[in-house]
Order: sequence, then C-alpha cells, then structure tokens
Amino acid sequence: MDQNYYMPGEWFPHSCCWMLWPYRSDNWRNQAKPARKAFLQVATAIAKFESVIIGVRNDCFTDAIQLLKEYQQNFPSKYEIHMIVLESDDCWMRDCGPTFVIPKDLDSLKPLGGIDWDFNAWGSKLPSWELDEQIAHQVIEHAKAIRWKPDHFILEGGSIHTDGEGTILTTEQCLLHSNRNPHLSKQHIESYLLEYLGAEKVIWLTRGLTADLDTDGHIDNFCCFTKPGEVLLAWSDDINDEQYHISREALAILEQTTDARNRSLKIVKIPIPPKLTYTESEIQELEGVDELEFARLPGERLAGSYVNFYIANGGIVMPSFDVSTDSIAKDILQSVFPSYEIVQVPGRDILLGGGNIHCITQQQPQWP
Amino acid sequence: MDQNYYMPGEWFPHSCCWMLWPYRSDNWRNQAKPARKAFLQVATAIAKFESVIIGVRNDCFTDAIQLLKEYQQNFPSKYEIHMIVLESDDCWMRDCGPTFVIPKDLDSLKPLGGIDWDFNAWGSKLPSWELDEQIAHQVIEHAKAIRWKPDHFILEGGSIHTDGEGTILTTEQCLLHSNRNPHLSKQHIESYLLEYLGAEKVIWLTRGLTADLDTDGHIDNFCCFTKPGEVLLAWSDDINDEQYHISREALAILEQTTDARNRSLKIVKIPIPPKLTYTESEIQELEGVDELEFARLPGERLAGSYVNFYIANGGIVMPSFDVSTDSIAKDILQSVFPSYEIVQVPGRDILLGGGNIHCITQQQPQWP
Repeated sequence: MDQNYYMPGEWFPHSCCWMLWPYRSDNWRNQAKPARKAFLQVATAIAKFESVIIGVRNDCFTDAIQLLKEYQQNFPSKYEIHMIVLESDDCWMRDCGPTFVIPKDLDSLKPLGGIDWDFNAWGSKLPSWELDEQIAHQVIEHAKAIRWKPDHFILEGGSIHTDGEGTILTTEQCLLHSNRNPHLSKQHIESYLLEYLGAEKVIWLTRGLTADLDTDGHIDNFCCFTKPGEVLLAWSDDINDEQYHISREALAILEQTTDARNRSLKIVKIPIPPKLTYTESEIQELEGVDELEFARLPGERLAGSYVNFYIANGGIVMPSFDVSTDSIAKDILQSVFPSYEIVQVPGRDILLGGGNIHCITQQQPQWP
Repeated sequence: MDQNYYMPGEWFPHSCCWMLWPYRSDNWRNQAKPARKAFLQVATAIAKFESVIIGVRNDCFTDAIQLLKEYQQNFPSKYEIHMIVLESDDCWMRDCGPTFVIPKDLDSLKPLGGIDWDFNAWGSKLPSWELDEQIAHQVIEHAKAIRWKPDHFILEGGSIHTDGEGTILTTEQCLLHSNRNPHLSKQHIESYLLEYLGAEKVIWLTRGLTADLDTDGHIDNFCCFTKPGEVLLAWSDDINDEQYHISREALAILEQTTDARNRSLKIVKIPIPPKLTYTESEIQELEGVDELEFARLPGERLAGSYVNFYIANGGIVMPSFDVSTDSIAKDILQSVFPSYEIVQVPGRDILLGGGNIHCITQQQPQWP
C-alpha cells in the first residue's frame, strides 16, 4: 500500500456511482421486481447529480437493459445510467465493492487507487460469495485504478466511514465480530484501517443500529460524517426501544472523543423511523430462503434508518418509509447539507433486503 | 433500422478494438495457455495503434488480469489493453460481436449504432451458444451505441466485408448454408445485408477458403477489401490444391463484376501458406472434444490464410506461420497498405482454434 494515498470523504467529487442489480428471489420478494424498481429509482435520483454504472449478472442483462430503457423513457436523467456485466451473488456494492483512495497530494500525477478487501458475505451469511468476492477487483479494473489487496483482512465498505481528514468511524460489533477476522486483535484491525485508508485515528462505537443483524451493526446504518468535525447519529427518544440505549452509548463516546485533528465533534441527531417490521405477505413473496443464514420472519424488526443515504455531487439521496419521520429527517439532512439538493426515494423495498441506499452504492472519486 | 447509417470500411478510424479471452479446453490446446499468449500478442500488436478491450469470463478474470499485467511488464504498449467481464462460450469477437455502423452524414449528431445479429455458433457447431449470443448486445451497451436487432437473421461478422462505399463482399457457401437462415432466399438475405449495412450491392463469391469448414467459408479468411475498388484474394498456384480452383473461380467473379459505384475491381493476389495440418500432439492437448461438431483430427488441414488480418489505426496486424510465404505476404500487404505499419504475430495457435486475427477482433469506429 502506498502511504501517500487516503480515502476521501464521500462528499469529495465523484466521477460516478457504482451499483449492482438485485436478483436473488430468496432475499428480494416477488423475484426482485419491487427491488429492481427501487434500485432504478435510486439510480435515477443519483443520476440527477452524477453518472451511475450498474453491474448486472449475465443472465439478467437483457431484461435489465430493457427495464432500464423503459424506465428512462418515463424518468429521464441528466447524467447517464449505464449497465455492464458483473457476476454477483447479491447486490450490495458498498460492501463487496472496492474502497477507492486517491493521493494525499492533490497535485500528484499518480492514478486512482482501489482497495480490494476480502469479503465473506457478512460472516458467511450467504451460501456462497465467490462472485461478490471478485466484484471489487473487477470494478477496480474498470475504473483503471491501481489495486491493493490487504492480506487476509475481511472488511465491508459499509462498516467504515471517514471524514477524509484522518478519522475513521466504525463499530466494534462488526469489526471485532468473530465471523470476520478472528485471527486479528483490535489493535491489528486498527492498524489495517489506518494503513489502507491513509488515516490516523479510529473512533470505535460499540454497537450499530438495533436489529441490524445482517451486517452485525454496520456504521453506515447508524452514524456518519456529514463533514469534518460533524457526525449525524440515528436517535430514539423511546426508552423502551433498544435503540434509545445504543444511541446514548454512542453519543457518550462521540462527545468524549476528538478526531484525528484533535477537534471535538458536533453531533447532530436524526430520528429513526417508527418501528418497521416484515409483513406476512412480504415473507411469503420470498422463495427458497432455507439456505440463508438470515431467514426472515413476519413481525421481525427491520433496521430502518435515515443515516443510510448517499452523498452525490451536490445531492443527497436518502430513503423514505412513508412514515411521519420522513419529512423531519429530510429537514435535518437539508440543515446539515445546506448547499445540497435532498432527494427522497422509497426505501422499504431495499430495507427488506437488509440495507438501504448507502449499502447499494459506492462512489468513485473524480480522479485524476 | 435507420437508413441513414452504414458500416464503414475497416480502415475508418477506430476508437478501440474488441476481443474475447480464450478458455475452452476442447477447442484450445493445453487448456488455452498457448492461445492466451497468442491473443495477448495480438492485443499488444493492436495496442501499438489503438486501445483494446478484452471481454473475459468471470471465472477467468483474476488469472487473465494477472497474465495481462505480467505480459505488459515485458511488452508495454502505447495504447491501453483493458479487461472487462463478458461471459462467452468461445472467443471469436468478429463473429458474435456487433457490427458497428455510423451515420452516412459524417456531420450528423446521431450516435454510434450497433447491429446485434442473431448468432447460432456457425450453424450449431458448439454444444451451446447462449453466452456468445448475448455478447453483441453487451458490447453495444458498453459502447453506448443504439442497438438494432434484425428479426431472425443469423450472421457472423466474419462472413461479410465492406468497402464502406456501398459494396458488400460475401460467400454463398456460408450465407446460403442451410445451417444459417434456411427460411430466407438469397434475395431476402441480400435485402437484409443492404438494409442493415447501408449498402447498395452485394458481390457473391461462391466458396470460401479450402478447409475452412468451421465457418463454412467465411469471406474474411479468403478475400477482403483493402480500399474502395481494390480486393486482396488468397491464392494458390498449385493445381493439385483445391484452393487453386476456388481462387480462380473467385477471380473470375471479381474480374467480371463492378462495385456499387460501378468501378471494376483491382485484384491483388496473396499466396496461402504451404499446407498446414493439425499435429498429433496438438490434438492430444485438447480435452473433451467429443461434444464438438468439429472434432479435430491429426493431419487435418488448417484453413491458413494471410487475408485474416486486422486493420488498426495506421497498422496492419497479420499472422505469420513460420513458413517461407510469411515474408512474401508481408511485402504484399505493405504494398497495398503503403502508409501502414505491418506487424506480424505468430498465428498458428489461433488458427488451431479455427480462425485467425480478423476473427478474434472487432473494430469500434471512432464515433462521434
């Protein structure tokens, strides 16, 4: 790894946004049709601000292209949405995709870099992940970036956030989970993060969002930087909700810490939506779920969060859940991103699969 | 189909050259290792003049990238060679890839076009061709071109040549073969060609090169335009060689015809190499050939030809066979392409698979 590279903040200008195409009928109801619509809505919202490349399995390609073209006739976008062939097991580009890094010296002539972390489907939660494992490499080649491959280090992009100024935010629940890197101590894991992300300090929250079992508490569903020195924290004031305690614990940590530049953090709270659960009919629309580690149950809580948004070039694409908190959350995001256009997209059908808009996207920085 | 489009001559400037990556161990000896080397040699020769994109099956991708990078350390190229994921059955981009077309009005603002012909593996000669069938569509999407899909019309790119000025050159042996479009008359087939290629006249040779059984006599292994009004014809002076008679027959047709602009053709002869055959050991290095329509036999003649070259931007990439005619053929190509650099690449390991350099390449015109 070249020590003169770092992972920029998500607000650093992008050349494009990467996504994958849903297809698993065991994780996406009704043979992924509602999810595909939701993904197209997300892609179209992002394409207001930057171009989007969607990797599609070969066996879905013709149908996907047709669906995209039909959709674009009704909802044309300013920037283009482009489909290429990528063979994947599922469609969480944030997690199986690369982490792009750029030279710290912005006058450098060095090329874009990409980190190809090991991937094991969130601690072996899918029957196989051989295809997802290769996505990062293929995206890096596509982006014509230099590739760095950490040696035996499992990491999903959704488990880290950065302020682009030396600070990494993550959770112990995920990064220290025995299903990821049991051979490494917390200190070793921290060294890996600092080395590959070109950072100086890791802020460790203990847990992620309540009910976020699929990812073991990814940070990107719970807390994120909105700019250097400021974080947004998913919040609950309901003392009977586990989230109440998780959020307060995180607040205490964040209040007491400083970032890599020794700044105290401004902490902005954003409510979680009211408790959302799988419905009976949503579960019935899944097929062959027996093979999955995380079989869904009716009434099971969904890990709904407004923190799971994507920062595009001049725009924020965030989920809505058709609940009262949608507009409150939007106003809060507008207040912390005053110069950005905030676009809400229905997120329930992505959430049903185990994540949200941030989880299905991956920014490629504009470099060089 | 937009009637204001046409297929330009291969010498029209290219934005890139498309290829695929060999992998079938039933068609490429020694698990395709020698073929991969040969393909990399071809790609590198072309990358002296223009960039190359190689579509690689997902299950070969990591190895292919590594091989490419190792190769490029020893043989760097001026233009880049880029690998992307494309799932294919075999690796003949000329035949399963799209035919690119551009507006006849070169001041037009219309986009690049791509024709996605039906493909049936040269008359069902592979056990399956579902993946190859989709390559053209995917390449067209990649090139961000408009796609036109003729209705139930099977055609391989290697079975047609154009002078870019209204004339198409082909063979009856292939285009009228019952394994391609038995539902269409010669007249119908001609109408399709003229419509989709934006041309006015088809010159029909009766047969292709001797021993070219895999393709049923593709024109691109036998005769091609070198510029409007001039063709290059594979030739034999050995009266005991079937090629002697085939070439004379073609010569008679070419001498008596005129092109779409009513010009007589200048015909340049180029010798075929001395008779080349499969060796015992080459056949033994194939695996599981039983399923193939065209199982190879030791001593069987190879359809060796110098006409099977690729016209790059300012360069000709042609095969050599380590025989005495190599330098004669090179001199002839230099004489008909006086301003081009002629690069010879060992072609035997491509020929063993059933074609040569033109068959494994497909130009994308520089448009817009």
